[in-house]
Formats: sequence, C-alpha cells, structure tokens
Amino acid sequence: MGRWGEWRLLAKLLPALRRACSGRVRVKPGDDAAVLRWPGRPADLVVTTDMMVEHVHFETRWTSGEDLGHKALAVNLSDLAAMGDVRPFFGLVALGITPRTPVGFVENFYRGLRHLADRHGLDLAGGDTVRSKVLVASVMVAGLLRRGRRPVLRTGARAGDRILVTGTLGDAAAGLAIVSGRRAGTARDRAFLARRLLRPEPRLAAAARLAALGPPPSLMDSSDGFWRSLTLLCEGSGVGARVDVASLPLSASLRQWARGGQAVDLALAGGEDYELVLTAGPGAAARMERQGAARVVGEIVPRRFGLQAHHKGKPWRVPRGFEHFD
Amino acid sequence: MGRWGEWRLLAKLLPALRRACSGRVRVKPGDDAAVLRWPGRPADLVVTTDMMVEHVHFETRWTSGEDLGHKALAVNLSDLAAMGDVRPFFGLVALGITPRTPVGFVENFYRGLRHLADRHGLDLAGGDTVRSKVLVASVMVAGLLRRGRRPVLRTGARAGDRILVTGTLGDAAAGLAIVSGRRAGTARDRAFLARRLLRPEPRLAAAARLAALGPPPSLMDSSDGFWRSLTLLCEGSGVGARVDVASLPLSASLRQWARGGQAVDLALAGGEDYELVLTAGPGAAARMERQGAARVVGEIVPRRFGLQAHHKGKPWRVPRGFEHFD
Repeated sequence: MGRWGEWRLLAKLLPALRRACSGRVRVKPGDDAAVLRWPGRPADLVVTTDMMVEHVHFETRWTSGEDLGHKALAVNLSDLAAMGDVRPFFGLVALGITPRTPVGFVENFYRGLRHLADRHGLDLAGGDTVRSKVLVASVMVAGLLRRGRRPVLRTGARAGDRILVTGTLGDAAAGLAIVSGRRAGTARDRAFLARRLLRPEPRLAAAARLAALGPPPSLMDSSDGFWRSLTLLCEGSGVGARVDVASLPLSASLRQWARGGQAVDLALAGGEDYELVLTAGPGAAARMERQGAARVVGEIVPRRFGLQAHHKGKPWRVPRGFEHFD
Repeated sequence: MGRWGEWRLLAKLLPALRRACSGRVRVKPGDDAAVLRWPGRPADLVVTTDMMVEHVHFETRWTSGEDLGHKALAVNLSDLAAMGDVRPFFGLVALGITPRTPVGFVENFYRGLRHLADRHGLDLAGGDTVRSKVLVASVMVAGLLRRGRRPVLRTGARAGDRILVTGTLGDAAAGLAIVSGRRAGTARDRAFLARRLLRPEPRLAAAARLAALGPPPSLMDSSDGFWRSLTLLCEGSGVGARVDVASLPLSASLRQWARGGQAVDLALAGGEDYELVLTAGPGAAARMERQGAARVVGEIVPRRFGLQAHHKGKPWRVPRGFEHFD
C-alpha cells in the first residue's frame, strides 16, 4: 500500500473515528492534531502521534540514532505547531529494535530525543522498548494551547486570503536524493540539504509569532509537501488556490544544487520540510512578510478555479510528488 | 535482543530519562505509567504507551484485526489500572501495515479498538497509519487519577503486608500454547484460555474497587507474569516475599487443560494475564478477599528472606518464564 493508498484508507477510517468521539474532543481526528477540552481548564490539550518505520521512512545507512530520535519527535512537534500557538507539554515514545540494533544506537536515539525535548520544554514521560523485525519509532506528544488562542484548522481559508509559507521549501526532498547517493553540488550544500531532511526543526516559535501577527484563519504543516498541504487545506476549506511558483522560498543551497525548474518542482511537491503552510488576510499577510515570519506565495481563490500554479503568467505543471521507496 | 535483554537495556536508559523530567512529572518513567501534574487541576494525568509487533507479540495466523485492536488498547488500559483509581481519558494509535495487510484487517483493528474504548469512556483522539514490513500497533493512553486518590507505585510494599492478585493466573500462557498448536483439553477450555490471551480485560473497575477498600500501598499489573511483577515490586520496595502456590487463583479451564504442577508454573511465570498484583495490610487484604475483589496469595517479608514460593510447607522452584518466540 503506497502513500496514496494510505490516504484513501485513512479517508475510509476517519468518519467512524470522528463519530465515536465524545464532546470532550474539540477538534476531532483528521487535522494535524486533535484538541481535547479539559473540563475546568482554560488551556486545551493538543495531541498527535506519528510513527517512523525503517525501510519506509528512513534507512540506518544514512540515519544515526540521534537523527532518528530527533526526527521522530520533531515530526510530532511540527503537528503541534500546525495547530497554532501551542506549548509542548509531554511526550511518550515506543521503540521497536531488531536483534542487530546496537545498544549505542538506542542510547543515541534517546539522546537525540531528549535534546530536542529539552529545547522545547517537553517532558518525556515514558518509553516502551520492544523487539521487532525492523526499527520502528512511534512518538506521541501533547501540548497546551496558549490561553486565549484558538486551534487553527485546515478549514478556515477564504477567497482573497494570501497563502504563506515559513522557511524554505524543497530542501528535505533534495536531502533525500543526496543521502540516497546523488552526488551533485558542493559538499557544503549537500550537508545543509541532508541536515534539513534528517534534523527538521519544528516551527513552534514561528507558529506563536504568526498567531500574534494574525492569527491565521488556516494552518497546517508541509510534512507531505507544500502542494499536498495546500490541496488538503483547499479541500478542507472549500476553496481554490493560485500559486506563483517564482515566489516560493528556496534556500541558496537548493538553488545551487538543483538546476532551474527542478528546484521549483522540489519546493512544490517534495515532502518532509516540516514548514508551516497558512493563509491570512491581506493586512496580516503583509505584516507577517514584513517581519520575516512567512513568505506570501499565492492567493486563495473561489473553489471553481481549482488549484493552479503559475510562473511568469504561464501555467506550471505540478509533479505528482516525490515518494519514498515506492 | 530477548526479553531479558530488553529489561537490561531499559535499566540503562531509565536514569537519564528520569533525570531529564521536570517538576511537572510526579511519577517518572519506570512504573507501569507516568503521572503528570496538571497545574491548577485537582486530577493528575496518568500516561503510558505500549507497542505490539508481529512475529514478536502476535501472529496474524491466530490474531484477528479485532483481537489486535482490542489487545493493543487493553494492555495500555491495564497500565492505567496498575496506577490505581484512574478514569480513562483519551488514546492515540499508530498502526504500521504491510502491503499484504487486507483493508478489512485494518477496519477490524479499529473496530476492536473502538469497542473497548467505548466500554471505558476513552476518546480515540487520532490515528497514524503508515507502511511497514511487519504489522506494528503502537497505542498510548492518558487517564485521570480520580480526585483524592494517589498513584499507587511499586515502591510501597512493607513487611507484613499481604500479597494479592485479581482474577486468575496462567490462562494467557496456556492460551499461547493453544493458539500455537497444542491440542490438549476440551474445545471449550481451549476457547476460554485462548480468549484470555487474545482479549485481556483491563482491570480498571477492580483497581477502583481496591482503592475504595484499601487503598493498597503497592500495585502493578502482571503483564510479564505474576512472579516477574512480584520481583519488580519487591525490588522497588526493598522487601522480600513468601508465596503459597496452593493459593494462586486458577481458572477451572486451566486446571482441566494443564496437569498438576504445570498449572501452578503457568500461574507463577506465564505472562499476559493483565491481572493486578498488589499488597495490602492484613485488615484491608481480608476485606478485599471477603468481597471477592482479590485473592491473598502470600505475604511480604523482610528483604533478607528474598522471594520464596512454597507448596504445603516445601519450597517450590519457580520456572524462569515462558518466553514468546525466544
């Protein structure tokens, strides 16, 4: 079952999961994270989980124990950031290790996890370590929505909103090509791009800043690629989008490493950058851009126009996605 | 890495995990579950996670999708019960499926999960489904310690306390032998014992009842077998134990299916019954036994006497454990 198969399966399972939720669940499964009401508490609990499996999401050939610990937690923290102004609270980890996994790898895994947890004030409240045929790292995190803030969903985009992204796009997809053996570019650019794949930085601070400047009416992370995120956001909000590919933020390393249109395609469809994709009204968007919090890359349009990418006035064909090991 | 290797590894990792915890963590990793203080809230949050891996913890030959969904949640709820009077709050699930996993299996997995969740008032707040080379089910749950109750740890046993267990012991280990092909006994007994393996019932109601009758000074679940739990409880409390194997609660099916001493050995060392193992002062223990909440099986003694099992006054040699697939 490929990535697209997973999405179809999830679509099949979600309605029953959502129906079964009680009134305590303020945001039901289906967004980046769920939000639980905490009776009598001003702050809601934001919760999410992500699993990383060897040979599917990573190879130990190019992922150290510390990389895996960092990333397994980072992708979860990214889901918290994708819900708005959320303060990390606690995390739990379950790790499946094979008979061939060195003890040092496991120690480094926890070191990478703890280091990122410390930086974000997250308590690691427990870990289960079991045997497995392949390495599996499953992490869950809970955060607290900051007082007075609302969870920002995928359903709030309106025609006329600007589309914005944080950071730069396409780096992690280039990093995957690099760790898989592609040797173009300088060692320095290759190191930067590989690090963007292996050590993504969850955008919690950016999410807090955007909330203060906006707050944005819709928000998610770019885990499966910018275009995929924008598609989900438009489906969730019942709108279309027009993206100016010339304005997509590209790192200097990606520009150097890739040639011409390929950098743009990686930025559009490459996954695992874990940046934020959001919409904001024109005024808030201008503030966000002026303060360097995010870059405007397009505009939300009525649904009937669909999703379009343009480059200097001409339509740009968006690739279907860069899959791992498919 | 076998089960004993896992425990050694955990012992190596735990100190650093515990040191890294902030003051919000009231019970740090190392007990059945961790307990987090929730500033301004009367109820603390009890959290735990467990992972089940194909070919290690189960085989699809004898585990249906519904069995797996039920059990992956049940073993986590059992960890909540092992902390005392805890009300389930929410759960998250991450499921790794192979290209050969039928969609129906996944739907049944969620059905089994939801059914047990509903019975215990637990909200399933999210699920991640990813590709994997083997089936992996990773579940985390959070519960709320009931107002006025303390978490019951493995460290509270004192010499003179009685040792008690809920339900019956050894059934799940017999069930494992049965699903693995051993054909002794009647079909009815085999079905009962297999069900005890495949559909363990988390003892949340029993834990609440014991708290009302006690509360017990120490408590854990019997996931890795009664003797293993008792060993951990004695290590945690700095005490010894004397168990009367003739008083171990055995189901009628186990007595029928196994012959003589084998039933006792399964009850002592067989895992996965997910019953509660606890201690209580003589008065509370008598109340618990009178009301049918638990059975007295021995007594806590000073540490210097170590852990001993006796049968009609003679020492009984406890087997080292019934391992899965080792």
